[in-house]
Parts: sequence; C-alpha cells; structure tokens
Amino acid sequence: MDVATSNKTSEGRIVVSAETVGRQIEALFRAWGMAEELIGPTVEAMVETDLRGIDSHGLAMMLRYYELLHDGVLNMTPEIKVVRETPVMALIDADGSLGHAVSVRAMDLAITKAREMGIGGAGVRDSNHFGAAGVYALRAARTGLIGLSTTNAWTRTVAPTRARIGVFGTNPVAIAAPARRNRPFVLDMATSTVSVGKVNVRWLNDQPIPEGWILDEEGGSISDAARAREYIYKREEGGLTPLGGTAGLSSYKGYGLAALVEILAGTLVGGTFTGISRGERNEKGRFNIGHFFMAIDPGAFRESGAFEADLDEMIDVLHGTEPVDPSEPVLVAGDPEWAHMAEREVNGIPIPERLVEGLRVIAEDCGAEFVLDQG
Amino acid sequence: MDVATSNKTSEGRIVVSAETVGRQIEALFRAWGMAEELIGPTVEAMVETDLRGIDSHGLAMMLRYYELLHDGVLNMTPEIKVVRETPVMALIDADGSLGHAVSVRAMDLAITKAREMGIGGAGVRDSNHFGAAGVYALRAARTGLIGLSTTNAWTRTVAPTRARIGVFGTNPVAIAAPARRNRPFVLDMATSTVSVGKVNVRWLNDQPIPEGWILDEEGGSISDAARAREYIYKREEGGLTPLGGTAGLSSYKGYGLAALVEILAGTLVGGTFTGISRGERNEKGRFNIGHFFMAIDPGAFRESGAFEADLDEMIDVLHGTEPVDPSEPVLVAGDPEWAHMAEREVNGIPIPERLVEGLRVIAEDCGAEFVLDQG
Repeated sequence: MDVATSNKTSEGRIVVSAETVGRQIEALFRAWGMAEELIGPTVEAMVETDLRGIDSHGLAMMLRYYELLHDGVLNMTPEIKVVRETPVMALIDADGSLGHAVSVRAMDLAITKAREMGIGGAGVRDSNHFGAAGVYALRAARTGLIGLSTTNAWTRTVAPTRARIGVFGTNPVAIAAPARRNRPFVLDMATSTVSVGKVNVRWLNDQPIPEGWILDEEGGSISDAARAREYIYKREEGGLTPLGGTAGLSSYKGYGLAALVEILAGTLVGGTFTGISRGERNEKGRFNIGHFFMAIDPGAFRESGAFEADLDEMIDVLHGTEPVDPSEPVLVAGDPEWAHMAEREVNGIPIPERLVEGLRVIAEDCGAEFVLDQG
Repeated sequence: MDVATSNKTSEGRIVVSAETVGRQIEALFRAWGMAEELIGPTVEAMVETDLRGIDSHGLAMMLRYYELLHDGVLNMTPEIKVVRETPVMALIDADGSLGHAVSVRAMDLAITKAREMGIGGAGVRDSNHFGAAGVYALRAARTGLIGLSTTNAWTRTVAPTRARIGVFGTNPVAIAAPARRNRPFVLDMATSTVSVGKVNVRWLNDQPIPEGWILDEEGGSISDAARAREYIYKREEGGLTPLGGTAGLSSYKGYGLAALVEILAGTLVGGTFTGISRGERNEKGRFNIGHFFMAIDPGAFRESGAFEADLDEMIDVLHGTEPVDPSEPVLVAGDPEWAHMAEREVNGIPIPERLVEGLRVIAEDCGAEFVLDQG
C-alpha cells in the first residue's frame, strides 16, 4: 500500500490505527534494547497520548528520545527500585530510564495505597520525560480515585515574573477525577501560559505569536514565531510566560505553580531543579528528572457513589452554563481529549509526513521494522 | 488617647498593634456567644492574616461575619465532630461554625498523620469562611511539612471560560513548604485572575479596572470599577475571569483549577457546589462551605535536611535571577507577606477609618468592648 496516496490527508498527514502506532513504537524500543518488561506500559501510555490528541507528547517524542539515547542520557536496561516505602508513600529510583513505565508503576503504587488507606503518594527520581501527565492521573480516575501527576523538566523555558531569563520547564500538572454518567474530569496543563508545542504549531502555520505567550529579555512580547523559537531553544534570555501572562494579570500565580511543581516533583523526590542544573547532566550523565503522583479515594470521605454523583452534577451544571457565544459551549477539563479519543479510536491517528519520514530514518538507522506505512 | 489625632495616617487609617486587633476580635466573638474554645484559634488565624498584609481576609471580615451571624448562618456553639478517620485522613463536620478554628484542627490532624505516615489529609464540611488559606498551609510548613489548604465559597463570582454567568467562587488554594535559611515558600492564590478585594481597592482609589480582570455577559472586559462591582455583587451575568484572563491566554487552566478546588473542598468532603446552590442556603439555613487540607512530610522521602537545603538553593536561585528591571527584583511566593509581617510586627497594623467606624458600630450594637482606639 502506498502511504502517499492511500492515507495522506490534505494537510500532508497520513492516518494510521492506534494499533499500528503502538507496533511502531514497540519495534523502535526493542531495537534500542529497552528491557522487555518496560516496553508494554511505555507503548500503552504513548499510544493513549496520541489517541487523546496530545500529539506533541506521544509518537512525536520518539525523535527526541532517539537523540537522548545517542547522548547516553537514557538507560534502556535500568534497575528500577523502590527505595523508600510506608503504607501511604513510596519513592522509586528510575535509574535513568525513560519515564513512562516507572510512572505507571508509581501511580499504581499510589492507587493501591489509597485503596487501603484513603490517600497514597509516590515519587520518582532519576527519571526522564514521561510523556503526557494526564495519562497517569487518568489511570487513578479509571479505578475510581482522584489522581494527581506532575513532573519537572530538563529544559529552562519559563521565565519567572520579572525575570530576564528562563528558569523553569513548562512543569505540567494533571488532575483527574471519576464521575459516573460523565467521562472523568481530566485537567492536564503546563503551568506556563502555553506549551512549547503551541508555539511550534504557530510557527508551522506561519502565524504570529499572540501577545503574552513569550517575552524577550526586556520583558517585551515576541510576535514573530521564528524569533520565539530562538528564545525557547537557543537563548537563555526571555522565555515562555507563567500562566497569567503578565504581572498585571497575576503571572506570579503561574510562576508560583511552576515552583510548586518543582517542589513536589523535584525537591521532594530528590530530582534536580533545572534552575540549578542549567540543563546540564549530573555525574551519571543524566538529567535526574523527578515525578510525583498522588491518589485519593473518595470512598474514604463520602458514602459509596456520593462523590461520583456530585461530580456528575457539577459537570452537568458546567456543560449547561449559558455560553457567551452559542456556537462555543462551555467545556469541562478533558472534553477536547475525550472528543479526540472517540474520533481517533474509530478513524485512526493522523501523523504529519515530516514525522513519518523522521521515524523512517531512525528505524533504518537502528534496524527496527518500519510499520507506519502498513496503516 | 484620641485616635483621630494620635494614630491617624495621611490615608485615613489608624495603626494599632496586633495585640489590640486580637483583643478587639476576641471581644466581638465573646459578645456573639462564640464557644470559648473556638475563640483562641480563630483570633490567632485572623490576626496573623492582618499581620501578613492580607487586609481583605482578617479583621475586615468581621463586618461580614456579623451579617452572617444575624442571618442565622453562623453557629457560634457548634458541635464539631470527626465523622470519619483513618491513619491518614479525617473528615470533620463543622456544624455551621465559622471556618477558622475547625480548619486549625483539621490541619493539625493532617500534620499529625503526616508525621506518622508520611502523608495526611483532612476535609471539613458544613463550615463557613475560613479567612486566608495561606495561614493553614503555613501552619504545616512551620512544623517542617509541605502544607496544602483550599476552600470553596458561597458567592458565584467567577465565570468559566466561554460562560455568560459566574459559577465558581474565587476558590483559593495555598501551598507552603519549609526551607532552612529562607522563610517558608507560601503560595496563596485565588484561582481567578484577581480576587474581589483587588477590584474593591481599584474602586476605592477611583482607578479603572485593567483589561482581562472581569467580563460582562458579552465577554467584554469591564473597565469602570463601579460597574465591575455591580457584576460581582449584584448581577449573575459576567464575572471575574479565571487565571489566564482570556481564552487565548489559556484561561481554561484557571477555570480547571477552580473546578479542582471545588472537587477537593466541595465534592470530596461533601460541601455544596456554589454552581448548584446558587448562593442559597441548605435545609439547615447554611451555605455548607467545604475545606480540604493536606500535609506531606519531606522526611518520608528524603534524608533529614535534604529537602530544606534543596528548597533553600531553589529560593536563592530565584532571588538571584536577573530581573528585567533592576528596581523590581524577582520575588518568591510569600515574599510580600513576609515583608508585611516584619514591618507590622514592629509598627502595627493599619486599619482604614471606614473599617474602624464599622467595627465601632457593631461593638456598640452587640455590647462588646471597643478597644481599637486604645492603640
């Protein structure tokens, strides 16, 4: 089957099934020597990310992961160990592994502890990129618990309020909660005004950057997308704004949330603060990314079913709130991702041709089977 | 001593000691018939709020509390009960009491559990206004723990992204964490772009409202402060924006955080969602406000002292980050409040004359001693 003719969309993308995306990721990880027991959970988390429409954090990350592998940052055969544990908490050393599988394990530990005790928390240190935070928080919500997941980062792209340079990563946090009639509430957000991915999308589409997304070293808003990317990828000065955008719109709150993420996913678990490492690697040649997960059992606080019923009522009220513009209804956190998932589970996952070609090159380079052109 | 001449500042304020503020609050609560064991912790929380410069949430609230007392909303002799408890969590029924004392008790339970188990959480239901969230989070940080505190509200002032009407309160959340050389990190923020208090300050000073703080029913920004207050206090339409301000600057994140606060402080603990109650009282004539508190012991995750040392390093890096404007150094969450506290512990707490007169009237009305004019 010829990809270029059969699956190509008008935007220069092909569309393939989730199963094929999973097979491609699996083939690459196996070629990279990833320990067998890590492949399954990693692939599952990444495919779910693409299904949920978070295109920047799933399959697309394989290009970056391949670079990290070559740079010796990723340990494909880590000795992942629980180094501290009580009935309500655990701390896991990821030994330089990619973040997904160890995060599934950490969240599952938090879930198990929350089921028994009411609340459970788990930290991970010496890890790497874990993909989309929402995937792990949602894992808790799917078992009936409130879930929180957060991670720090290794690139300094977000400038604190008033600062001339970037200090934080986009430090995402996700929270999910189970309803009954409605899909789970899932808030998955960078603590910056926008993610790096949104700047890249503007650049790819030759669109200007809106006022307040990214500032230069004088605190002025950057509108040219190419210049914005220079400030993200090449220059220490300036950076993405913390949520709020400007001091007058309370960006100190987004800055404070970025610091909070650093406190939980860095300071608490023993991960390295990007502001200290300046993106450099530690004595083991690693970034020492940290994650933090928490689960809370509503059944410890409420009668069985009461939490889910009340959350359903809240979601219904929000959906039923009169919008300013009738063509733009009020959404609830997670709605866009649930819509993507429903559509993509049926129709498949669109992949930009530039990404397809990049993956073809690395598949050849590492001797992995290339399957994306098999639909 | 004549207040009007001795203590009056040029801005029409008097300045009194924290001790006097405490005595005044205590005299009023005693005249209102508040149970003796609740007075101490309530007064302490409120005075600390004024010392920290959060003028809208301390002494100034007494006028509103007196209204609530007259409306039969506040129960001054509540039977406060722990209704659920495990080694890591507790749920407390406040029986319609004012929020402060029960919140101190809840946070102290969370702290005790976190000391023993690593993590502790406590919810409160059937409560009322608890003052400033930061006071309770800081209580955990002062004992060496990470603290979280949050509450929902009874007034619908914040409109979800895209919505024509207000649904949430300003739903604040506070997080505090202990360092060693530095004062604790304390982030205390409404999940709206600004609090109601900031709009009132603009109005008192005849200043326009900045773009993006508050929207009318068409989604347009309101710049006239008097009109803004109408939308906050009298009209269901429009409302304060969620953090982010506009859809283009990701206000869905502030909206999501407001919903998260509602999930923890309302849904999880059995408090009433403002969007459902529409500010009306329940069958007991109460608002059924909920709070949620959590404490995490860094000692469960790190070697003794490692967390505090790393947080010191992070705070130092942030303070040392080059600012855009050398006259506006980069701050860390809590800095403004610590500066207020240092100054006010020495020089006293400034109180607007309008508030002094209001308190004089209610003191006379309820037969409490009026002591603010005693310095």
